[in-house]
Amino acid sequence: MSLYGNAIVGQSGGPTAAINATLAGVIKGALAAQKKGQIGTLFGMRNGVEGLLAERLIDLGKEFADERRLSILENTPSSALGSCRKKLPPPEKDESVYAEILRIFKKYDIRYFFYIGGNDSMDTVDKLSAYFAKNQYEAKIVGVPKTIDNDLVVTDHTPGFGSAAKYVAVTMQEILRDCAVYTIPAVTIVEIMGRDAGWLTTSAALPGADGGIGPDLVYLPEKNFDLHAFFADVRAALDRHPNVVVAISEGIHDANGKYVGEGLTGGVDAFGHTQLSGAGKVLEVAVKERFGCKVRSIELNLPQRCAAHLASAADLSESVAAGEHAVSAALAGESGCMVTMTRANEPAYRIVYGTAPVCEIANQVKHVPDEYINAEANGVTDACIAYLRPLICGEVAPLYKDGLPVHCIL
Amino acid sequence: MSLYGNAIVGQSGGPTAAINATLAGVIKGALAAQKKGQIGTLFGMRNGVEGLLAERLIDLGKEFADERRLSILENTPSSALGSCRKKLPPPEKDESVYAEILRIFKKYDIRYFFYIGGNDSMDTVDKLSAYFAKNQYEAKIVGVPKTIDNDLVVTDHTPGFGSAAKYVAVTMQEILRDCAVYTIPAVTIVEIMGRDAGWLTTSAALPGADGGIGPDLVYLPEKNFDLHAFFADVRAALDRHPNVVVAISEGIHDANGKYVGEGLTGGVDAFGHTQLSGAGKVLEVAVKERFGCKVRSIELNLPQRCAAHLASAADLSESVAAGEHAVSAALAGESGCMVTMTRANEPAYRIVYGTAPVCEIANQVKHVPDEYINAEANGVTDACIAYLRPLICGEVAPLYKDGLPVHCIL
Repeated sequence: MSLYGNAIVGQSGGPTAAINATLAGVIKGALAAQKKGQIGTLFGMRNGVEGLLAERLIDLGKEFADERRLSILENTPSSALGSCRKKLPPPEKDESVYAEILRIFKKYDIRYFFYIGGNDSMDTVDKLSAYFAKNQYEAKIVGVPKTIDNDLVVTDHTPGFGSAAKYVAVTMQEILRDCAVYTIPAVTIVEIMGRDAGWLTTSAALPGADGGIGPDLVYLPEKNFDLHAFFADVRAALDRHPNVVVAISEGIHDANGKYVGEGLTGGVDAFGHTQLSGAGKVLEVAVKERFGCKVRSIELNLPQRCAAHLASAADLSESVAAGEHAVSAALAGESGCMVTMTRANEPAYRIVYGTAPVCEIANQVKHVPDEYINAEANGVTDACIAYLRPLICGEVAPLYKDGLPVHCIL
Repeated sequence: MSLYGNAIVGQSGGPTAAINATLAGVIKGALAAQKKGQIGTLFGMRNGVEGLLAERLIDLGKEFADERRLSILENTPSSALGSCRKKLPPPEKDESVYAEILRIFKKYDIRYFFYIGGNDSMDTVDKLSAYFAKNQYEAKIVGVPKTIDNDLVVTDHTPGFGSAAKYVAVTMQEILRDCAVYTIPAVTIVEIMGRDAGWLTTSAALPGADGGIGPDLVYLPEKNFDLHAFFADVRAALDRHPNVVVAISEGIHDANGKYVGEGLTGGVDAFGHTQLSGAGKVLEVAVKERFGCKVRSIELNLPQRCAAHLASAADLSESVAAGEHAVSAALAGESGCMVTMTRANEPAYRIVYGTAPVCEIANQVKHVPDEYINAEANGVTDACIAYLRPLICGEVAPLYKDGLPVHCIL
């Protein structure tokens, strides 16, 4: 046991192309602190709190004794430690899981807890830090954001979003090239992830910036989707040119809140969100019926969150820095907080790292603001492009072997 | 008018990530010949023979006076000249379109015709060269293959296939990482392009080579798909580990030839092929019903053929070389032929370019041979991996601006 106690890190929620970069940042920060005697062992928990409760822990100092492996980890998509979707119950309803976690913390002398995840993971950070404080167990609990949805409040954006946005923007640009080759009228509908917030869908508009060729129409869940207005928009676009390309968020819904994709599926996931798929398919059928032209829908699907080969270099380096900042913050005595990123108020793009109380962040959703959406609710504004652009800048050069990226598998 | 006549080049059929590299090769070869006085103007026809008939021609020498633009063209996905799906009628049935083409050839003094395309485009090359020969109009008609389907006979593989295969292999590897994060049983079905030939689907197996982690199961249209055998395969895979990943070709079909995806759609495209989509969706529903576990299907869709950012460097350089070879062959007096690629019979991978009479190639399909498919018909053999691997090797470094690849738009 270390004089200062040990540390543990976990990943939770849906993976991204950058969540391992944040893990690499936490490992870098913690191993540097270890060398200074500030932290003992750095444990990794497999599958988030699920693995913590099962005591499935690994010694990350040993795993990454060769630091070159960290750069492979940075470029590996998905959660190398595994993930979970376990949401802790309200402690007033069921304290047993908290008591069990406290027992495990004491057993392994864990004094630093780093949890990399999205909104639901920040809820875990919030509840754990409150429980430890109430039970007077000294531990620093710090959350590090990740989500391709970019829907966490307080922070300018979230690690993982930039890479997903770059994937969507580049893929949209490639699809636009592909769709432009024929002379017959055709409508292509591209469905992009984003249940409640349309951030990722806004990035589909990036190829159209500065006089470039972008999608004709972009629909976000922040505005009610009206089928008649949509038909009028498509008609007007078809009148301009034969190859119409439309970007839609999976979460677009009508004025009553009914999802466009609800016609096809309707499960409920572990957190009570409606499982969506098929808004693109529903609109494909509707447009085909209405206009009789060739219609195709493309669901960008999982590659949006795992296409590490096309990660944004800005995103990856910020993700590493956010992980390192979590360790610094914990060592400085902060707890119950999440790492935040603030855009410096200066001409060039620069991010300043800080923290905010996680209770101000958990269980809230940051939507695309009105000033980023055009008046017709079918596109984005220049202000939106200016916000997005630095987040997708820079290309990564992952190590390849035999034509495939080399990944780090724990 | 040149002493030697002018040349024209067109692109036809579905675009690929490498078809512009072949165009760049033709332009390089023709402009070099132009400098030597062997060729006059190099025209580009917009939208293949459709644009030729409408005399929508551009002077490619002027477009690419700055040769640096050729390297942008090489890295631009899709058909920069536009494409068409026009199939010429049998000349004995309707000679008028041939007479019109001959009139246009005479008008523009075209003596070299380069057509970059797939199977249906080679049919055009075949018919045109036969018609010109019959009518004693001296012109060299050379086809350059492109197709992500890799289904042309005689040639070892087709330009465009390697890049599509690399996209499928890298994306499959990233999806495998993503799917591995949770501990609950789940089946992910990845649907890959390939109507009649399963070549592209075989490339999904590449991440599993040499002890790597690959998809559990791979199904090709070369073998009849049996739902009961499939269920048994999935059951066995679920017994081994919770995260089962399956690669299927869009064209898998039962012993009666009925496509698995036929339950959902059934149009017919301009060439009489059944339009497919939804084999993945059909199996998603079937597996969910049978096993009650989480099931997801992912249709890789258009990015398979247009993801130029992830092109295979081997494929792009071969595609350029194939275009250059077409010009050399035409100048050497060859006609009615298609450029072929032969794998040199030596340990290291090397391609030798040649030509073959297009009548031996058009309207035939090269299937994945039995020795590339395992005995259970649910995976590929080491011989298949050995064939595929050199085709996806090497990474490209396209020019980026503001986070997006720079494309060449004519």
